[in-house]
Amino acid sequence: MTEPSGFAGLKRLLLGKPIPSHLAHHERLSRVTGLAVLSSDALSSVAYATDFILATLLVAGVSAFGYAIPISLVIAALLAIVAFSYRQTIHAYPTGGGAYIVAKENIGPMAGLIAAASLLVDYTLTVSVSISAGVLAITSAAPQLQQYRVELCLAFLVVLMLGNLRGIRESGQIFAVPTYFFVVSIMVLIGAGLLRYVTGTAAPVGTPVPPEAGHAPLTTFLLLTAFANGCTAMTGVEAVSNGVPAFRPPEAKNASATLVAMAVLAIVMFIGITFLAHVYLVIPKAEESGVSQLARAILGNRTIAYYLVQAATTLILVLAANTAYADFPRLASIVSRDGYLPRQFMNQGDRLAFSNGILVLSAFAAVLIVVFRGDTQSLLPLYMIGVFISFTLSQAGMVIHWRHTREPGWRTSAAINGFGAIVTGVVLIIVAVTKTLEGAWIVLLLIPLIVAVFKATRRHYSHVAEQLTLKGYAPPVRRHNTVLIPIGGIQRAVVEALRYAESLSDDVRAVYVDTDPAPTAQIERDWNTWGGKSRLVVLESPFRSLMEPLLEYIGQVEDERPDDYVTIILPEFVPARWWQHLLHNQRALLIKGALLFRPNVVVTSVPFHLTK
Amino acid sequence: MTEPSGFAGLKRLLLGKPIPSHLAHHERLSRVTGLAVLSSDALSSVAYATDFILATLLVAGVSAFGYAIPISLVIAALLAIVAFSYRQTIHAYPTGGGAYIVAKENIGPMAGLIAAASLLVDYTLTVSVSISAGVLAITSAAPQLQQYRVELCLAFLVVLMLGNLRGIRESGQIFAVPTYFFVVSIMVLIGAGLLRYVTGTAAPVGTPVPPEAGHAPLTTFLLLTAFANGCTAMTGVEAVSNGVPAFRPPEAKNASATLVAMAVLAIVMFIGITFLAHVYLVIPKAEESGVSQLARAILGNRTIAYYLVQAATTLILVLAANTAYADFPRLASIVSRDGYLPRQFMNQGDRLAFSNGILVLSAFAAVLIVVFRGDTQSLLPLYMIGVFISFTLSQAGMVIHWRHTREPGWRTSAAINGFGAIVTGVVLIIVAVTKTLEGAWIVLLLIPLIVAVFKATRRHYSHVAEQLTLKGYAPPVRRHNTVLIPIGGIQRAVVEALRYAESLSDDVRAVYVDTDPAPTAQIERDWNTWGGKSRLVVLESPFRSLMEPLLEYIGQVEDERPDDYVTIILPEFVPARWWQHLLHNQRALLIKGALLFRPNVVVTSVPFHLTK
Repeated sequence: MTEPSGFAGLKRLLLGKPIPSHLAHHERLSRVTGLAVLSSDALSSVAYATDFILATLLVAGVSAFGYAIPISLVIAALLAIVAFSYRQTIHAYPTGGGAYIVAKENIGPMAGLIAAASLLVDYTLTVSVSISAGVLAITSAAPQLQQYRVELCLAFLVVLMLGNLRGIRESGQIFAVPTYFFVVSIMVLIGAGLLRYVTGTAAPVGTPVPPEAGHAPLTTFLLLTAFANGCTAMTGVEAVSNGVPAFRPPEAKNASATLVAMAVLAIVMFIGITFLAHVYLVIPKAEESGVSQLARAILGNRTIAYYLVQAATTLILVLAANTAYADFPRLASIVSRDGYLPRQFMNQGDRLAFSNGILVLSAFAAVLIVVFRGDTQSLLPLYMIGVFISFTLSQAGMVIHWRHTREPGWRTSAAINGFGAIVTGVVLIIVAVTKTLEGAWIVLLLIPLIVAVFKATRRHYSHVAEQLTLKGYAPPVRRHNTVLIPIGGIQRAVVEALRYAESLSDDVRAVYVDTDPAPTAQIERDWNTWGGKSRLVVLESPFRSLMEPLLEYIGQVEDERPDDYVTIILPEFVPARWWQHLLHNQRALLIKGALLFRPNVVVTSVPFHLTK
Repeated sequence: MTEPSGFAGLKRLLLGKPIPSHLAHHERLSRVTGLAVLSSDALSSVAYATDFILATLLVAGVSAFGYAIPISLVIAALLAIVAFSYRQTIHAYPTGGGAYIVAKENIGPMAGLIAAASLLVDYTLTVSVSISAGVLAITSAAPQLQQYRVELCLAFLVVLMLGNLRGIRESGQIFAVPTYFFVVSIMVLIGAGLLRYVTGTAAPVGTPVPPEAGHAPLTTFLLLTAFANGCTAMTGVEAVSNGVPAFRPPEAKNASATLVAMAVLAIVMFIGITFLAHVYLVIPKAEESGVSQLARAILGNRTIAYYLVQAATTLILVLAANTAYADFPRLASIVSRDGYLPRQFMNQGDRLAFSNGILVLSAFAAVLIVVFRGDTQSLLPLYMIGVFISFTLSQAGMVIHWRHTREPGWRTSAAINGFGAIVTGVVLIIVAVTKTLEGAWIVLLLIPLIVAVFKATRRHYSHVAEQLTLKGYAPPVRRHNTVLIPIGGIQRAVVEALRYAESLSDDVRAVYVDTDPAPTAQIERDWNTWGGKSRLVVLESPFRSLMEPLLEYIGQVEDERPDDYVTIILPEFVPARWWQHLLHNQRALLIKGALLFRPNVVVTSVPFHLTK
């Protein structure tokens, strides 16, 4: 075997070594690393969910903040219901029951596509929202970095992209620590906050009431909007059930235990923070997160403990973005396998397909970050539509699944999933009603558009399959091969290309476009020495153009023998250094481009290797 | 002849029709259009030169403004000297005497390269500075557009780029009117301003003294800085002498007359505006240009006459940017012909080379506009270094030219050019001393860097020429051609590629990478029907990768017969619609990339045309 070439070397550097089949199970996740990798999205949302509830209530004045606690209790109950509902999916789909598969298999292909489109949008927003919120934790602690918000977001995005291009296993190892660091930090914060509350030493944060605080009436619509915004706490619950096959055996059991642990942690932290925000009179600000305000009040302004909480928050949020980096390429690969996405996303043995998913995800997330200036509050209205469409379709699909299998206890299972579907469906309607005008319309337009792309892709691939079928196919009889070599002079690369051409056919013609009589005479003289068995064709160029006479001549040759081959041989320089590529072969590229749509014309590049 | 293909059609749409040789002189400029196209850079600089003098003097307080008039008289004298000096170049170099040619032929290749680098930088800055100043004329009249300054600049840039991609002749026709519109507007403004001054009805502009007005001492350094900034009025003087061959015959005579007309107009307008700025107490502001302030004071605030002056200023400045769009590609083409720039810039008959120059110029100008936020004052320190290096080298080269020719009256000619060289050399030193710390260092670094690129390019092309020489060349004897076709299955495209391959060689092998036993068995069955004379090679893939076993096998075949050809045939889909390209051929591209550096390996694409 030869050494890895430049290409393979670059690929290894970027993507890590390929993994032999018999080692693949070493990549699997334990419960501990599984919780770290798959739960960070759900857990990290406690860092911003409370803020979003309070920011909504603020338009009715600080006095409306009291409603945050009942709202958060309802959301916690919903989270428990949805987690319980997904626990059943894990056992029914031990090979991975993402919303796409569950909806497709049980409801139908269209439901599957809608779920897939929703999830792809959702994952992209997970990256943008989590990174923005992570950067907010930094700028809360270091306000002088506020002006570099977008740049910081993009820097994190690039780090995540490169990390994920190197592979999931390293991700698990690198990122196991931050999840537990965050859980411990928040638990200590809640513990200390409750202790000061119980001992009566809790002092309010003392944030001034911002000018946007209003005296709007506390309408049902406002309460529903606050509720819808708080439901961000529920995002990411589905990650564990999508990732079942990534666990070590017994996969389903490990995944189920991880899901329960995640739900309990998320609920405790969310309710804890919301309660403390109430006690310590936190008022959300665009420049400082609620968790930062709480940590300042409880742990002391600018103490080491305060900075640790901010660091932990940033890390878990970046890790949450990383969840999407595992999910997006996997879903794209599954959808591609069904023919709805380009084949480049389909995993065909090496990591290349996942790399394409990672690159596409990064590009779209970067666009969102730049367009919304890295502001979590502005991205939020777009976020939850996709999440709750996939929740609802997935749960509804499970109900149908149980009705089909009718395995023991199916009625209870169907009831649990049915309740989950109804609850998430209601939340979806609430989110759509309250958030459409604030930006959710973008997602409501985008999802049908993506579904249309899915269907067009699939239609194209099936048209191609029809055109490629061998049933009833009689290959056309082509015998003669006219070989043409466009030349600009006679030198070694041309002579080597001529010798190669003569190995292919007896009808080889070098084609020279005459723009100046002097060099033409020289070429005709050189031809006597070097031309060999080939013919020299000199073309006139009334328009001083090189391309047009050449294309015209190729057209004439095609017309002479419409059913035979025409092969165009282009001597191509292979430079010794990368920058030298810029100095060569542009005209060859143009010729290739111009000939792309000619049937029966075959283009061949004969390399000439430059040594310096 | 066949109809224009997709490529040729796109090219015609973008670039216009090709021009036959016998029609080329129809493209030539008359004196009237020549003044419009080639003088706009020099004339338009009166729109900002006075502002720059005043803005510099402002640090010493408004009382220092009195120095503006003597400074502008010195600059006017310089302009006359330089114009007179360039008039000689026109007659000595009737085929176009740009600083590159004059410096190269008379002083030496290195002087030519420095001049060329300076000019390329200068042309790029002409685009950025002129467009920024043109947009300032708009935002002076409509301050609410201030916040879209960068976007407006980029919009003008795109219009200029597309206009120039379509060709110079249309440019002359479209842009003849604005130059005269500007000259008339400014002359009317100066006339009306003088009339009101003489009749004693001149009222000061009444701009409040800005906070940056200071009480710094009026040092010599400050006066020299003001002078250096005012020398922007001289930029563009060389355009006519560079463009001599673009004129109708008699070229030199027409160009000379145009140059004189240009110099007289520029001097009259520059002195007129500077004098009026003094009389009407204009105080430069970043948000409103001096011309705008003058026009408000003289023609009335927000009158039609005021808006006409602003419109004329914007138009001439955009036209000035257009001058660089004629000059940059022409210079790049000349430098490329000498081997110092990639061949893509060399005009080889069609307009493609100029299009490359236009695109490169646009890209660099866009970077400058974005980095400097479209602010003329910030771009200014970068501007003049390049201009005055090329002025000085060009004039110095002319002195040597006269010493060589010794034609009648050569001493006078040499004295005129020598005086021009000394004067512009002194200005260059003043500019370098006063502006280096303000940003001119960028250009002082950039010019040697560009010269290094020139030399590396030329060195590479001469290395290539050595490697291509036929002197003492004995072509290697290669007879056997092993043809390999990587396949992923057997379908029509593969069968057509097989038939083509069999027309090339007797040793054809289809190569299939086995990642799954089931499809492999199917392929082996299909091979019996469709395989023909070719062999099927099935490769094991322990790493589930498709690429690595394939590359390894190609390596083995190369090792078998190291001196013979290996041809890789790739069936390539040619889709019916452009977006379908995204769905195909990615693996073919990867294979091509991986094989690029293998000697003796020839890659051939056999097209399979999809009909839908």
